[in-house]
Amino acid sequence: MEAIVKQCKKACPFLHNSTTATLSKLSRMPAPAGFASEVSGNVRTNALTTMAQKCPVMGKAIAIQSKSYLRTSARLAKHPTLPLKQAALINNENEARVAAAVMAALQGQTPTTHSTHSKPFDYETLYKSELEKKHQDKSYRYFNNINRLAKQFPKAHTANLQEEVTVWCSNDYLGMGRNPLVLESMQKTMNKYGAGAGGTRNIAGNCNLHLQLETELADLHHKPAALVFSSCYVANDATLSTLASKLPGCVIFSDASNHASMIQGIKHSGAKKMIFKHNDLQDLETKLQSVDIHIPKIIAFESVYSMSGSVGQIEEICNLAKKYGAITFLDEVHAVGMYGPRGAGVAEHLDFDLNACYPHGNNGGILDKVDIISGTLGKAFGVVGGYIAGSAALIDMIRSYAPGFIFTTSLPPV
Amino acid sequence: MEAIVKQCKKACPFLHNSTTATLSKLSRMPAPAGFASEVSGNVRTNALTTMAQKCPVMGKAIAIQSKSYLRTSARLAKHPTLPLKQAALINNENEARVAAAVMAALQGQTPTTHSTHSKPFDYETLYKSELEKKHQDKSYRYFNNINRLAKQFPKAHTANLQEEVTVWCSNDYLGMGRNPLVLESMQKTMNKYGAGAGGTRNIAGNCNLHLQLETELADLHHKPAALVFSSCYVANDATLSTLASKLPGCVIFSDASNHASMIQGIKHSGAKKMIFKHNDLQDLETKLQSVDIHIPKIIAFESVYSMSGSVGQIEEICNLAKKYGAITFLDEVHAVGMYGPRGAGVAEHLDFDLNACYPHGNNGGILDKVDIISGTLGKAFGVVGGYIAGSAALIDMIRSYAPGFIFTTSLPPV
Repeated sequence: MEAIVKQCKKACPFLHNSTTATLSKLSRMPAPAGFASEVSGNVRTNALTTMAQKCPVMGKAIAIQSKSYLRTSARLAKHPTLPLKQAALINNENEARVAAAVMAALQGQTPTTHSTHSKPFDYETLYKSELEKKHQDKSYRYFNNINRLAKQFPKAHTANLQEEVTVWCSNDYLGMGRNPLVLESMQKTMNKYGAGAGGTRNIAGNCNLHLQLETELADLHHKPAALVFSSCYVANDATLSTLASKLPGCVIFSDASNHASMIQGIKHSGAKKMIFKHNDLQDLETKLQSVDIHIPKIIAFESVYSMSGSVGQIEEICNLAKKYGAITFLDEVHAVGMYGPRGAGVAEHLDFDLNACYPHGNNGGILDKVDIISGTLGKAFGVVGGYIAGSAALIDMIRSYAPGFIFTTSLPPV
Repeated sequence: MEAIVKQCKKACPFLHNSTTATLSKLSRMPAPAGFASEVSGNVRTNALTTMAQKCPVMGKAIAIQSKSYLRTSARLAKHPTLPLKQAALINNENEARVAAAVMAALQGQTPTTHSTHSKPFDYETLYKSELEKKHQDKSYRYFNNINRLAKQFPKAHTANLQEEVTVWCSNDYLGMGRNPLVLESMQKTMNKYGAGAGGTRNIAGNCNLHLQLETELADLHHKPAALVFSSCYVANDATLSTLASKLPGCVIFSDASNHASMIQGIKHSGAKKMIFKHNDLQDLETKLQSVDIHIPKIIAFESVYSMSGSVGQIEEICNLAKKYGAITFLDEVHAVGMYGPRGAGVAEHLDFDLNACYPHGNNGGILDKVDIISGTLGKAFGVVGGYIAGSAALIDMIRSYAPGFIFTTSLPPV
């Protein structure tokens, strides 16, 4: 700070002619009434800063810096004891640090800073600055309080029990979550087997109901086997990360609009990822061509994309997969329970009549071409949980190796 | 292969004197009766291999290779069409490839191999070989079929409805999963709000019940806030991976016996990990000392360890954390619902009387010292789901940034 003051003294005729004692005295004197009211708040205003703002060279810059500092301070009004450095972190750190140094030098103060060698890291400030980023880019979320009423689908009450709203944004598309048959079956099961699974699948948490559900889901998707997870987020994450990490040198071709759960699974696998333009077969083929045919490849895509509602080109992508020696991973979460004669999703829907007549797989339909299908029980099926369906060996491998499947309490029997 | 045959011919007086046509003919002739019975199975035996085994130089080696090959073949008996290379993969790939090449050369055959430039990767064989590894090291799991009976706790029926067993391995430690109050409350809720959440927390899947549950869990653990996840596996994974990736240069100190979910979270964060010996304060302190105090640090540990049942040294670890500028992440999954005057776990239990008298936090107990606590609703609480409790800013940051929280259907109201 001494150096900065010396440098300022050289450049500024006012500072040049003032002793450090005078500057210090001025910094302790209150600002004139008008100025103080203009820049009130947490910022310290005094006679020195007031005079500094009158400087024809630096005046405007200091005013801007003061206002920027005030904005930051206002956001931190609840935490008046936060040191300047921490407030500065929340805005642009470097700019704010410079502003703080200039202000402090003019005020004859040394700004409070962390010594990086003596003070521990300030976790709370980091959390707050990460939240501030969300506020800044308008991505901070306030959750609505929506209490969907089983007897008045699609109505819900808000936090106020008397205020009712119509819910069109729910994924319980068909109201199966309040279907009397579903509720009756759940109540019966609850009375017989209780509310929770009571363990992982390997320890007391594997019952007939899990096995029957998996058999039914496998059959629904025309596959030899299926595996149930806590959610389809977990199903996608655990399956893609385990599968791609097991396939030596695997390259994953991922649609640009894929869901976060697949993106996480791909990331966690550590495998090489090539993102193809959303639903762009030409781009996918070009990227497939760039990798040797003997190298294992996964094409990960969706049937109904959650954000755009666009529909994946399932058959065409399966054909490309066959041509280039890839396997396909198809996320049908927004389609299961909705499309196809038995509600298996878009892949089943594409051969509607064929699948209606021959509903149990190996019928030559497009469904047979898809290697792995993931789905959810938490949207159109109205309850909770996720799953994958595929070949017996694949399912057994994921069952045997995926930590996200193995080390978690299984779905409740209910 | 030609080159190998030529080289063998040079070295071996028998091969040297035989024409290729003779060798080929011998390879098509059946082996003498005694030899054939000894090495029957999938391996092809013929007059040439029989004679080769009589060779004083290579005989013994060939017999060992044959037996090794036979063992591999026996495991693949269900898949007799698998080519040799694929069978070989299951044992030590390189050794088996050499064995196959020698055998084939002696038999005048070319072994079936993948051309790495023309044939696509064989996924099914990889899945099977990964499963074979599990069988080999005896870690392949066969799930028991256990159907816990709500009315006969701790009894369950097996796949056979008439066969009853007593379940001592369940994590529904107190039978809360069949407690009449729990079941009655679930039935009421189901009738009012239905079976599923119908969306993510941000989209129609956030109701009063979630908010009330989080308020109750926060209070239970003497923290300002809490956040509910699909499971505690997801809670640990999502929290540690998000938190450690946000803290710049973070180092995680992880107890050697930590649960898989924490290990995954640490791995997914990409942060530096230092594993300290299980429950070893000296080792932890030595490791903490090795990292500058200003660098953010997380100590991740458990209160009751799932595999050994040992109890973490909560107060001592919190003191070390304070000394070295770390925060603590305590997994109480096996303790919540079990210990402490209100069932908050071991941290609450350590100040039993204090917490019984002043149950609502900031009472100066050890619980106040723990920064983040994770717990489950799926074990002693008898149902499903997991959570974390901590400071308001921490919880809000995880809520705002963790994909494993954001992009998944929330817990059902039931």
